[in-house]
Order: sequence, then C-alpha cells, then structure tokens
Amino acid sequence: MTSEFEIIEYYFKKKIKHTVLGIGDDGAIVNIQKNHQLVISSDMLIENIHFLKNTNPFHLGWKSLAVNLSDIAAMGGKPKWATLSISLPKISHLWLRKFSGGFFKCANQFGIDLIGGDTSRGPLSISVTIMGEIKNNHTLLRSNAKINDDIWITGQLGLASMGLASLQRKLKLPPLLKTKCINTLEVPTPRVSLGSHLSRYTNSCIDISDGLIQDLNHILKASKVGAVLMLNDIPCEKFIHTSKQYQFVLNGGDDYELLFTAPKKNRSYIKKIAKKTNTAANIIGIITHKKDLKILNTQGKSVPFHIMGFDHFA
Amino acid sequence: MTSEFEIIEYYFKKKIKHTVLGIGDDGAIVNIQKNHQLVISSDMLIENIHFLKNTNPFHLGWKSLAVNLSDIAAMGGKPKWATLSISLPKISHLWLRKFSGGFFKCANQFGIDLIGGDTSRGPLSISVTIMGEIKNNHTLLRSNAKINDDIWITGQLGLASMGLASLQRKLKLPPLLKTKCINTLEVPTPRVSLGSHLSRYTNSCIDISDGLIQDLNHILKASKVGAVLMLNDIPCEKFIHTSKQYQFVLNGGDDYELLFTAPKKNRSYIKKIAKKTNTAANIIGIITHKKDLKILNTQGKSVPFHIMGFDHFA
Repeated sequence: MTSEFEIIEYYFKKKIKHTVLGIGDDGAIVNIQKNHQLVISSDMLIENIHFLKNTNPFHLGWKSLAVNLSDIAAMGGKPKWATLSISLPKISHLWLRKFSGGFFKCANQFGIDLIGGDTSRGPLSISVTIMGEIKNNHTLLRSNAKINDDIWITGQLGLASMGLASLQRKLKLPPLLKTKCINTLEVPTPRVSLGSHLSRYTNSCIDISDGLIQDLNHILKASKVGAVLMLNDIPCEKFIHTSKQYQFVLNGGDDYELLFTAPKKNRSYIKKIAKKTNTAANIIGIITHKKDLKILNTQGKSVPFHIMGFDHFA
Repeated sequence: MTSEFEIIEYYFKKKIKHTVLGIGDDGAIVNIQKNHQLVISSDMLIENIHFLKNTNPFHLGWKSLAVNLSDIAAMGGKPKWATLSISLPKISHLWLRKFSGGFFKCANQFGIDLIGGDTSRGPLSISVTIMGEIKNNHTLLRSNAKINDDIWITGQLGLASMGLASLQRKLKLPPLLKTKCINTLEVPTPRVSLGSHLSRYTNSCIDISDGLIQDLNHILKASKVGAVLMLNDIPCEKFIHTSKQYQFVLNGGDDYELLFTAPKKNRSYIKKIAKKTNTAANIIGIITHKKDLKILNTQGKSVPFHIMGFDHFA
C-alpha cells in the first residue's frame, strides 16, 4: 500500500454521519439546515513551527483537528465537517495509524465528518479546514465587546506554553505538573459545547491561540474599547504565582481556551451554561471605555507587560 | 511589515462580494441559497512535488486557486468561497505581491471570495479549500457513467505534462509550442462555466489532474463499467501524433480538463453549452459493459498502455 489513493482509503475514509457525499469524488456535498449559516476556519500545523519534531503522532492527529474546532467554538458555531490536507516526508504506516487514530478520536468525540482533503509527499505539515453551522445571526464576533462587559476565560491559562518550555528544557517543572502541561500542549480540549451555547448571553468571543494579551487585543481593537485585567483572578497553576512567571499566562500560546465578554446581568446564565457543559469559566476583568489594556495586581497597581504573543513568522 | 497579521491584512484581505463575514475573526460566515447544497474540495501544492522551485509566483497564485476551481467544476457546482493556508521559508514582499496578484486575478475572474486561511513560516506549501453551491441533486458524480454513454473531453490533453518535461529538459519542443505548454502547466483554465451547466445532460464527470487513463479509471471503477477510447480522436498537438509520444496525452497530469460521459441523445445540447461557454468539447470514446479499458488506433487495433498516472507519493 503506497499510493495516495490507498492511503486515503485505508486511513482516512471513515463512516460519515451528516454528509450527503464524502471522500471519493472531486468534492464533497453537505446540506446546511434551514435558518442556519455556514461558519468556516482553516489552520495549519507545521513541524518545528507549530509542533516539535517527534511529537506523538496520535496527539498530533488530535490537535490538528482540535485547534480548528476551537475556532468554530469561538464563533458560537457547531462544527460538523472537516477537510485534511497532509504532506509527509515518507509513508510510515505506524505514523499514519497513530495520526489518523488521534484525528478520528477527536472527530468522533465532537461529531465531525472528515469529508475530503489531499495527501502528498513533502515536509511534514497538516492543513485542516473546518466547517460548521450556526443559527442565523447567532455569531460571536470579536468586534462586539461592550463597555462594562465582564471578561471571562475558560479553564486555566499558561499550561501549554509551560509544557513547550519544559520540552525545550527552558523550564523545570515538578513531574506531575510537567505531565499535565505537556498533555495540555499536545491534546488540547476545544470548548465546543460551551461555545455553541454562549451566543445568547455574550457580546464577543475569541479563542486563546496566540496568548491572552495578543488575543484580547484583537477583541479590543475590533471593538474599539479597552480593558482592565486582574492578574490574580486569571486561573493558573500555583507554580506561576510562586515563581512569578506570569509570561506563560499572559503571552503563552496554544491554550485554546475561550475568552469572551458579556454583560454583568448575564453572570448567572453563563455560570449555568458553564456548569451544564462541564467547563470552568471565570471572570478576569472588565471592558473599559479607555482604549488601552491595564493589568492590575492585588494591590491595584498596574503591572508592566509585553504585548507580544506567538507570531508564526517571528 | 513582518507579522502574520500584517501580511494577511496587506496581501490577502480583499473586498468580498457574497460573504457575510470575511477575514478577521476566528471564522468566516456565509449563507447558502435555498434549495442548494454546499460542495467542498481541498488541494495542496508543495514545492518540488507539485511545482518546480522558482516557479513564477504570479502563476503559482493563479494555479493554486485554479486547480481547486476545477474540482468544483467537475462536481457541477458554482465555486464561491476559498480559504488559503500558506507556509513560506521567509517573508519576501516581491514574492507575496506576485503570488497574491495571481491568486486574486483568478479569484476575480471566477467570482471567488477569499474568506480565511493561515500563514506561517515553513517550507513553501499552499493549501486551498474551495467551497461552492450546487442545486439540490444536480451533482456530477464519478459513479454514474452509463453503458453506451459518449465519453467527452474538454480542450486538449498533454500540454501541461509536455511543459513540465520541457522545463525538466526531458523533452525538446519547438519554441512556440514550448511557450504554450508551459503556460498551460502554470496557468491552467478551470472549466468552471461549462461544469456548472453540464449536470442536466451528463451522467458522470471528473477533472483530469492525474492523467486521462488514471482519472477515467476512477469513473470506470466507481461506475462499474468499462470504456473504449479512440486514440486519434483525443484532442492534442500534432507534435504528439508525429512523435508518437502518446504518454503525454494518456498519462500526463495537470491538464485540468473535464472528462464527462453523457447519453448520445444529448450531443446537440452539450455542443450548444460548449459553444455558449466558449469551451472546446469532443467525443473520444464510449462507455462499455465490459469492465476494462481499451484504446484503439485508426486501424481499430488495441494499443498497449500503462495505467500509471501521477502519484504524489511516487
């Protein structure tokens, strides 16, 4: 088995659940429900840029889909279909079995049909396009944050970037925490269930892929507002507080948590949805009229910080 | 200007025509017309696999979209939206200006909105996902060829692979023909207009990307039929007949012509549509009950041939 057709047939053509025509023709065909719009996002993972050489291929398969699901969650949509284009230096069946295993574990968990793509020899890179549905006008935009909105964050921040730093031997972590951090880096959980329920109660949303400050800044710029964050309210490991290494929380990429803003009056609704979808969600700050970003410590003093986050050309 | 956000803003964020929300958020939003389905395809172009090093970036931009449009045409759809994920070894503004120029020349000519994607440092590769609309149940499948169908082909075959062989100094061509062949290789014309009009009159369709025999075989397998081709009826350059280098016609990749099958009674309709859409279309054979492929010469004798076409792992 060495041709691209055989590889697709064997590793990537699985049962489809909500697709009219899947892999095997020049294109796939899907139906969009009445009163729904299509939401689309594309992400690329490249060896040595987005993941380290020798990353566990099962984890890589999971992550290549998960990071895309996170984008649809951040739009308030329900992801349903994906295409996968993958280039490999050589055909390794062990690698392909693990990679496709991880990819379909994620696909099955979140109800995604793989409907197309491409395979080729080439430097290892993975491009996924994800498509989903969203009820008309229920989209969660970056551009709609309102003054006095609470700023919410799901889960914990900084784990993935601590995991990366640890793998790169730039950070020494206690063994249990190290495992947790690397797992978060390699097998992130997209907040799909929460995201698809948020739109009624929130004004704006983004997923944290390039770091809290950089991604919050996208909301601030698009919405023409500012923000104040309470450093100690940002959920993170105790290790970060004791070591004062807040750069992981503020600038660390690859968290794939949702950052959203919502009117104060919706706090109880949001807490209910978070509980229902089994997602931790906490308020970490407030949207302000003044068009800048301030981060305050427990004494209410402004903390200096760098805006830089993860740039794939840096 | 060196960050990925600036590159996207400057080179890839253009006016959109039929998109609710374009580049700039976590995802894009589009509406699908009533009684229409969504048709999707993804293709990847990798340096040294799908195109030679130092290919004119304007041509590469055009081609990276055009090969995807060809897939939607082969499904009978009308392409409308694309995402583009591109990795580059370094930021060259000259290269980006030319590449995006070629991409948008093709996008504008065929009415495509670029609605998302990704950019990163990495080995040069380009992944495009194309989405389009198709009227419910008007899809052109590979699996629906019927016995006694005419086999039609648009345009000429073999030009692109002769162009590639010429660039690789494996084939010597007269100067004018060389220019024509390289132009077909680098700036293919997707048969979008014809494709979107064919579904009423044809039974099956595929685009020729991996070579006539290999792609026709996809139809034969999917439809569980056979075929007879008349070698001398396949439209190609006189050079091929005189030099007897039929491998370019039979196995040459990158033609992006449409191969379709249709009942004999629809000949006049198809000729009319071809004329209306300014597309050459010729009958080159017939679908048969016997499940194999025969290629006959002018004396009616069977010509030996190889099934191999272009395999991206070969």
